[in-house]
Amino acid sequence: MMRTRPLKVALLGCGVVGSEVARIMTTHADDLTARIGAPVELAGVAVRRPDRVREGIDQNLVTTDATALVKRGDIDVVVEVIGGIEPARTLITTAFEHGASVVSANKALLAQDGAALHAVAGQHDKDLYYEAAVAGAIPLIRPLRESLAGDKINRVMGIVNGTTNFILDKMDSTGAGYQEALDEATALGYAEADPTADVEGFDAAAKAAILAGIAFHTRVRLDDVYREGMTEVTAADFASAREMGCTIKLLAICERAADGASVTARVHPAMIPLSHPLASVRGAYNAVFVESDAAGQLMFYGPGAGGSPTASAVLGDLVAVCRNRLNGATGPGESAYAALPVSPMGEVVTRYHISLDVADKPGVLAQVATVFAEHGVSIDTVRQSGKDGEASLVVVTHRASDAALTGTVEALRKLDTVRGVASIMRVEGE
Amino acid sequence: MMRTRPLKVALLGCGVVGSEVARIMTTHADDLTARIGAPVELAGVAVRRPDRVREGIDQNLVTTDATALVKRGDIDVVVEVIGGIEPARTLITTAFEHGASVVSANKALLAQDGAALHAVAGQHDKDLYYEAAVAGAIPLIRPLRESLAGDKINRVMGIVNGTTNFILDKMDSTGAGYQEALDEATALGYAEADPTADVEGFDAAAKAAILAGIAFHTRVRLDDVYREGMTEVTAADFASAREMGCTIKLLAICERAADGASVTARVHPAMIPLSHPLASVRGAYNAVFVESDAAGQLMFYGPGAGGSPTASAVLGDLVAVCRNRLNGATGPGESAYAALPVSPMGEVVTRYHISLDVADKPGVLAQVATVFAEHGVSIDTVRQSGKDGEASLVVVTHRASDAALTGTVEALRKLDTVRGVASIMRVEGE
Repeated sequence: MMRTRPLKVALLGCGVVGSEVARIMTTHADDLTARIGAPVELAGVAVRRPDRVREGIDQNLVTTDATALVKRGDIDVVVEVIGGIEPARTLITTAFEHGASVVSANKALLAQDGAALHAVAGQHDKDLYYEAAVAGAIPLIRPLRESLAGDKINRVMGIVNGTTNFILDKMDSTGAGYQEALDEATALGYAEADPTADVEGFDAAAKAAILAGIAFHTRVRLDDVYREGMTEVTAADFASAREMGCTIKLLAICERAADGASVTARVHPAMIPLSHPLASVRGAYNAVFVESDAAGQLMFYGPGAGGSPTASAVLGDLVAVCRNRLNGATGPGESAYAALPVSPMGEVVTRYHISLDVADKPGVLAQVATVFAEHGVSIDTVRQSGKDGEASLVVVTHRASDAALTGTVEALRKLDTVRGVASIMRVEGE
Repeated sequence: MMRTRPLKVALLGCGVVGSEVARIMTTHADDLTARIGAPVELAGVAVRRPDRVREGIDQNLVTTDATALVKRGDIDVVVEVIGGIEPARTLITTAFEHGASVVSANKALLAQDGAALHAVAGQHDKDLYYEAAVAGAIPLIRPLRESLAGDKINRVMGIVNGTTNFILDKMDSTGAGYQEALDEATALGYAEADPTADVEGFDAAAKAAILAGIAFHTRVRLDDVYREGMTEVTAADFASAREMGCTIKLLAICERAADGASVTARVHPAMIPLSHPLASVRGAYNAVFVESDAAGQLMFYGPGAGGSPTASAVLGDLVAVCRNRLNGATGPGESAYAALPVSPMGEVVTRYHISLDVADKPGVLAQVATVFAEHGVSIDTVRQSGKDGEASLVVVTHRASDAALTGTVEALRKLDTVRGVASIMRVEGE
């Protein structure tokens, strides 16, 4: 069974993840050979700064010409860990055209152009694998795509960004405000100097697009994902959450509508009950909850980022792609046959927690309750508190559409007795 | 890409799992066709009692002659959900010999004869898949075998039997004794009339053997797994556990030795800290914690048994095997290249919680501590309590080998001042 010609791997990018991939390919070479059925050889490493010393990597393999590397024609698998849209997209396309399969960790690119890249891979009968693009080391794409291939997935809800989970966990456990928690995350290396992609939910939205696409066999692009960051979550919100027996997480939620005819994908902060398994996901860990017809509720938990964990996912894909290549076969490609419409946020149905600053006088509650009723939003609980002429109302609703809730809030803002809408937060996980 | 000739599936067994497999094959036929690339057709159902009415199954497909069914020669995939060693083993072997691949949910058979069955599958270039054999619907075998194929797994620790977790959870939450909790589990259908396979740990041991084999690329048979049931866990043990901030779970633990040169596999009740993710696994749910070099700590959680969840796992395998068949390829077979020795229980290193009934007089603690020291078992904490001439000592040790602990306990029993060893329990998850 064992053949002697090694499979040749080209590595695009040699940062935190790439260097770890190269290191494990060396230290675990015998294991990889046994598991694949042939040796794998690092045939080239494309980098931007060739003069930087990279321990354990033969300097002769290093090149700045990534295009020439993927065009060599003798490369079996290209591992793309550059990130970003270009030049990664062109390099991956070129790799397929020159006979290589591709393993990528590039969530932004896959969320934006996954369908087009799968099409090129398919034309050339090559594999495109990207387990590392979502939730780091956690096996998630393979289980969704293969283990649950005989089931019907109705919901994928998860914490898929470690940076924001670290910040929210810190706010929850210490009572810190957003800025203070972000500063600590930055100091500890959990947040980048420019944290926008994480805290504004762009990173999580890309992952939601990828997960929704796989779960529902439907093309879901980044633009289809409703996105709300977590920069406006306050210590007061956490206090409100605690009063409800909840905490706050930034969630990516992909759902099939109740009638099964459409899907939605969204990223936003939400309250979830402390008893929900996602509530106890601490620090920079990720976890994804999956609900399906036959399997019921599953959860996958683990480190969502970092060089080693991401490299573990990349190498798992590398082994699979190499095995496919030796078999003369390819693994499952894009599956978008269901082609369900992606509904806008207005059609999402969930529960809401709304804090209002109101005038402290009789009849306010009746006025507010009337507005909810007029918009068809049913109230679950109301809590009133007030002193010194100031008063607040906290309303928790039953399930209602986002459109109905938005209409309700617009009408509330027009009431003389409502001085302000202090916060609106969705309540999930019940 | 779509071919019209359907893939033919033979179902062996039509009980709780089999009938659910048949039902989903019908209700989800279009999805299965799209995901596989060809329709799948139920070509025959072998049962013991053909006269029983099976809703949704064409009576013309039902046969009592399972052997004739697997010998037909036109069957693409045999789904074996009979359970037990024979006739399942012979039927699976015959299926391979007559050109079929096999999907099985049979943990007992795979733990005992997995290597031999893989060998026959390999000779005939056929697939043998069995995701459903361990932890029901939880994708576990595929992640271990494929997602982590580029990593080095050091530890797999899990709750892999729902019946015993239901019983222990009930004892923990209500203070009930073992028999009372078992009676409730039986009344609710969580325990079988004869619960031996579950409560004595045989079921979990079979799963441990399968998991250890895959995780360590080493043949591990049921006989290699140390097994201790949970029938002797008492309400007093739960009280002791709570005093330590722990609960008690029946765990399957597969470990690579610190030097990497050998492995162990064992099933026994153990205390684990309430802060450990496995501690919060409630009711009949299963969860498995995996530790690897690069990925770090992962956890997989979900329903561990039941018709629907098990059918979900069977159907995921069915889709994979059908795709392989259309590709003219096979998936990863047995991987036992590492062939590490499986060490006996004496070499397992862990911590222990020991309750002793002792004479209430001066010097007892010194005597007991001396015995521990003489056997090289280092004490972490001791708690002494006594009244009315009776006294008890609770000792929690640092990490020590099972052999050293056993020697210690034998010596303790010989002390005049030790009236009895009330309980010994391992402490895991730290």
